[in-house]
Amino acid sequence: MNYSCSRYELKCNECGKRFGNQPLSACPDCLAPLEITYDREAARHLFTKENIAAGPANIWRYAALLPIPDGFQPDLPVGFTPLVRAKNLGKRIGAANLYVKNDAVCFPTLSFKDRVVSVALANAQKFGFDIVGCSSTGNLANSVAAQAARLGLKATILVPADLEPAKILNTLVYGARLVRIDGNYDHVNRLCTQIADEYAWGLVNVNLRPYYAEGSKTVGYEIAEQLGWRLPDNVVVPMAGGSLIRKIRKAFNELIYLGLVEEKPVRFFGAQASGCSPISVAVKEGTDTIEPQRPNTIARSLAIGNPADGPAAAKMIRSSGGWAEDVSDVEIVSGIQELAETEGIFTETAGGVTTAVTARLYADGRISANETTVTCITGNGLKTTDALIGRYQQERAVRPRLADFDAYLRELDGITELELTTAGAL
Amino acid sequence: MNYSCSRYELKCNECGKRFGNQPLSACPDCLAPLEITYDREAARHLFTKENIAAGPANIWRYAALLPIPDGFQPDLPVGFTPLVRAKNLGKRIGAANLYVKNDAVCFPTLSFKDRVVSVALANAQKFGFDIVGCSSTGNLANSVAAQAARLGLKATILVPADLEPAKILNTLVYGARLVRIDGNYDHVNRLCTQIADEYAWGLVNVNLRPYYAEGSKTVGYEIAEQLGWRLPDNVVVPMAGGSLIRKIRKAFNELIYLGLVEEKPVRFFGAQASGCSPISVAVKEGTDTIEPQRPNTIARSLAIGNPADGPAAAKMIRSSGGWAEDVSDVEIVSGIQELAETEGIFTETAGGVTTAVTARLYADGRISANETTVTCITGNGLKTTDALIGRYQQERAVRPRLADFDAYLRELDGITELELTTAGAL
Repeated sequence: MNYSCSRYELKCNECGKRFGNQPLSACPDCLAPLEITYDREAARHLFTKENIAAGPANIWRYAALLPIPDGFQPDLPVGFTPLVRAKNLGKRIGAANLYVKNDAVCFPTLSFKDRVVSVALANAQKFGFDIVGCSSTGNLANSVAAQAARLGLKATILVPADLEPAKILNTLVYGARLVRIDGNYDHVNRLCTQIADEYAWGLVNVNLRPYYAEGSKTVGYEIAEQLGWRLPDNVVVPMAGGSLIRKIRKAFNELIYLGLVEEKPVRFFGAQASGCSPISVAVKEGTDTIEPQRPNTIARSLAIGNPADGPAAAKMIRSSGGWAEDVSDVEIVSGIQELAETEGIFTETAGGVTTAVTARLYADGRISANETTVTCITGNGLKTTDALIGRYQQERAVRPRLADFDAYLRELDGITELELTTAGAL
Repeated sequence: MNYSCSRYELKCNECGKRFGNQPLSACPDCLAPLEITYDREAARHLFTKENIAAGPANIWRYAALLPIPDGFQPDLPVGFTPLVRAKNLGKRIGAANLYVKNDAVCFPTLSFKDRVVSVALANAQKFGFDIVGCSSTGNLANSVAAQAARLGLKATILVPADLEPAKILNTLVYGARLVRIDGNYDHVNRLCTQIADEYAWGLVNVNLRPYYAEGSKTVGYEIAEQLGWRLPDNVVVPMAGGSLIRKIRKAFNELIYLGLVEEKPVRFFGAQASGCSPISVAVKEGTDTIEPQRPNTIARSLAIGNPADGPAAAKMIRSSGGWAEDVSDVEIVSGIQELAETEGIFTETAGGVTTAVTARLYADGRISANETTVTCITGNGLKTTDALIGRYQQERAVRPRLADFDAYLRELDGITELELTTAGAL
């Protein structure tokens, strides 16, 4: 397979100046973030339904609109996660056309961060970095550590000191150097910005950020393709830094521009935890100004108090006719349980946020029952099991004899005599 | 998509008697296990490379040789996990053509059990069971609970009382009834056999076992297809009950019979933990008689002391020219780390067993460097994190200032002056 991609380069969002390709995330003149721009006319010939369908069942089928260097040969089958029709959850929350985009089973490390990391590391290798890294609330740490190991790159990863044990272990096991920082994510991230200036390291979400962020577009491409090349009415997206929701919109816009889907209005809904809700507060107050918060929530993967893309995300959400909502820690846990009990999908706390917010949006009438809505689950529940500890009581162990088992079932609530007497009915 | 499958029914391995389709696992006459038999001539027309390629990227592309009821519409995109070329691990253990079949990222619950459960539950629904269940060492519990939730079936799941916390939580979260049994897996399983006789329940690995076990064949189909429709020289497979390794062989034989691959000798290698190695002991001693063991190993998902398919697995391994090996708990942990550090794949203890055994087979010259070998990773490391606790020391937290970070790195082993002074070199 030839992974042809369109020509691309860095461009300042503000002044429009172009910078070729280099590890740089902000315009030296106006300090605005840089973004990747493509030769869209070249893309028109490469990025077609036919070419995409002929590609592999992973994100590299969309290579023509990803910033990957010439001659790049993808090493891992990242992404192309299931878009699951969520009839059971829908029934519970009054949604007739609900879909779950399930990145809880993203390859290789079970979160949507695998998408961005694979694109960032392709560029890290091209730029000649031997050491890569990131600031992370956990999922990014796991993904950088795993993919760097596979590519033979050294990884140094900075995290807030209080990160969940499973996410710490799931970084160390790959042989990465993990540095715990005495502070929250915003402290870690500021430090990483300084590190990127001082060290010759490729930090995927700092000096490689423009490349990295483009990987998120693949969530949008997959949603559209898996819906049969059409756009949904609504998308519900968890927000940490505010980048993912914007990139899904960018993906949809590219698909419209290139004629792969029909143009239609899509409303974007952002989901946050009430304990860290700077973007949702801004949306609710009708402003694009983000008031930074000090995070205090179990949804640690969303705990970014001063989100880099917050202003742009708030603006985009409102202009789409969407909304943002935030939910308490108790609702987050209920959201995790509800998604598991109805659809058999075990998500981490961030997915509990998204599920609970989705339910709230239907309950409040912000989304109507018959609209087509995709809710984005971005990580796996096995990474944040501590959030559920204490929610389930440990039942006593039963002796391995049928009489004891019978007696035990009769003790339990919910066991019916009917259930015990229909043996042999089949 | 029309999921056409060939006609199939239960048949006794021993006396050849046929039983149609019903929840039954052993021949009432000779007590031998029942197996599914297909109309292979019908399969010849349905099970073709072209039809398979036109199918979805999941196990249902192989529906023509799976026992799924007429009119079955698959609900979940199970399986079709990556077959990863393992160059780094290969370099470390002297294997030039090594592949990892990575069911650590199997959809939906991150183990190969998702394959068997989806086939079993399709039949449970057809037979009219409202309650399903299983005896389990963990992965099966997770998969039954999740898929039953999605299908709207009630689940009752029996496990040994000492199961890993993550596997218990990852069962309860789906709303399943979990019963902890005071004993090891063999006790649990005996009890489940009695339950299947007494209750009108569909126990996937008891009265639905013949249907269930066929799901494992999809690992073999995928390996062959992902190698470009050819068979490997060797396959290394973890063994608990001894079913998976036999079903991979069955899949290969079907592919040969139908002409989808060229016939060639494939050697099968079984992997066990030394703390529960009844099959590997039998293979080493050149016998098909299994001496039951009392399990004592951290690889709890392989801790079956009296494996149902043990005799047949031992016989098959030896007749293929393969071998079986077992490794200590220390080697299991090293195996987990080695696979993570080289290929970025985090597997559970069973995968540590398989990786360590694979290394041993190359070291002992039982597999030669240039042969094509597939090693089967069957579950995810996030389910058995307790096996690694204490292997990594918690480093002190660092203040979020560049000077502190610099000082910290200089303190650590492995940081070079070079690394700190090459800033700006790019």
